Amino acid sequence: MSKRKNIPMPVIRRLPKYRRYLLELSESDTEKISSTELGIKMGLTPSQIRQDFNCFGDFGQQGYGYNVEVLLSTISEILGMKMKYKFIIIGIGNIGQAIAKYTRFEGIGFELKGIFDINPSLIGLKFRNIEVYDVKFIEEFVKEKNIDIACICIDKRGAQQVCDKLVSSGIKAIWNFAPIDLNVPKDVPLENVHLSESILTLGYLLNEKNK
Amino acid sequence: MSKRKNIPMPVIRRLPKYRRYLLELSESDTEKISSTELGIKMGLTPSQIRQDFNCFGDFGQQGYGYNVEVLLSTISEILGMKMKYKFIIIGIGNIGQAIAKYTRFEGIGFELKGIFDINPSLIGLKFRNIEVYDVKFIEEFVKEKNIDIACICIDKRGAQQVCDKLVSSGIKAIWNFAPIDLNVPKDVPLENVHLSESILTLGYLLNEKNK
Repeated sequence: MSKRKNIPMPVIRRLPKYRRYLLELSESDTEKISSTELGIKMGLTPSQIRQDFNCFGDFGQQGYGYNVEVLLSTISEILGMKMKYKFIIIGIGNIGQAIAKYTRFEGIGFELKGIFDINPSLIGLKFRNIEVYDVKFIEEFVKEKNIDIACICIDKRGAQQVCDKLVSSGIKAIWNFAPIDLNVPKDVPLENVHLSESILTLGYLLNEKNK
Repeated sequence: MSKRKNIPMPVIRRLPKYRRYLLELSESDTEKISSTELGIKMGLTPSQIRQDFNCFGDFGQQGYGYNVEVLLSTISEILGMKMKYKFIIIGIGNIGQAIAKYTRFEGIGFELKGIFDINPSLIGLKFRNIEVYDVKFIEEFVKEKNIDIACICIDKRGAQQVCDKLVSSGIKAIWNFAPIDLNVPKDVPLENVHLSESILTLGYLLNEKNK
């Protein structure tokens, strides 16, 4: 396990994708796969794959291919998927509701524990049996329930303030959907999903194509 | 404008972020900003910002700072935001509904023109006055209405097949939320939003922190 220290961030970002492909292979009862075959499926070079896998241990022997189950199990473990994480949603608008209703997160270890909003007409509603609480109770809730991840789905106004409260209550990571770059301490991982920026990138590429 | 050819992809991906910060500056009536000030706000080095802006023209004079309005207008134009794009949603589940109900896309030039699903109990429903059609009409619709972007929000099963139909009907770009890497021709821009992979990255980082 000593080889696992300091896996570079680009490799980490590829791990879920490796996991997804390995899961498909496992489901189709494939036992072994070579870096060449995996590379063709994933659009990566075999040497890139070997380099990546080298970051977290010794797998497979040259010419024999990788054992799909061993690799899948190792990557799942590195991803912390043998752990369970508790998350909450702040802001139960369109995106918040989509996240709340998405049952797949539970299957990969992320359990929704609470929903918060500022809007009185939403407080008290239930989504998948989870009640929406007033956001003023958020600090108490995070501390008491030892929440790991906060999914911020509110407008950019107020997002930093909520984020500060979460951090001071001991939140361990932030999953941010608000269209703002949040300031968080270095030891609190932050993952952004900026949907407007994603569609704007397509707009740019389309505009370029039409020139 | 000749300097605008071949803006590198990492710079393109930063453009929506620049736009977001410049919009905030514009809304607070800031007329000029130096690369140093902008860098502090955005977490980039001043030289990075100058390099980026250099890709698409000459702005500002050394020591005088950038004119916020000129820069905002130029970036908006490069992003194709003076264009209007027509998009459709395929799959009106949780994420599809969130996208359909999100009114902000219209303000940045992306107009929802149609929604498609395979589920008979959803066909005929309306979201923001847009009716859900049977997916079997999708090819006809894309051709007739000259649709630019398809937002794929279905399960991975069937996603590639729908994608192929869209491409053969002349779709110009794909915005993919299905947990799969779609194969598209090189001239059809593809932008992925893989939510499970995003939360798994947080899981990994939390797991590492706890070691």
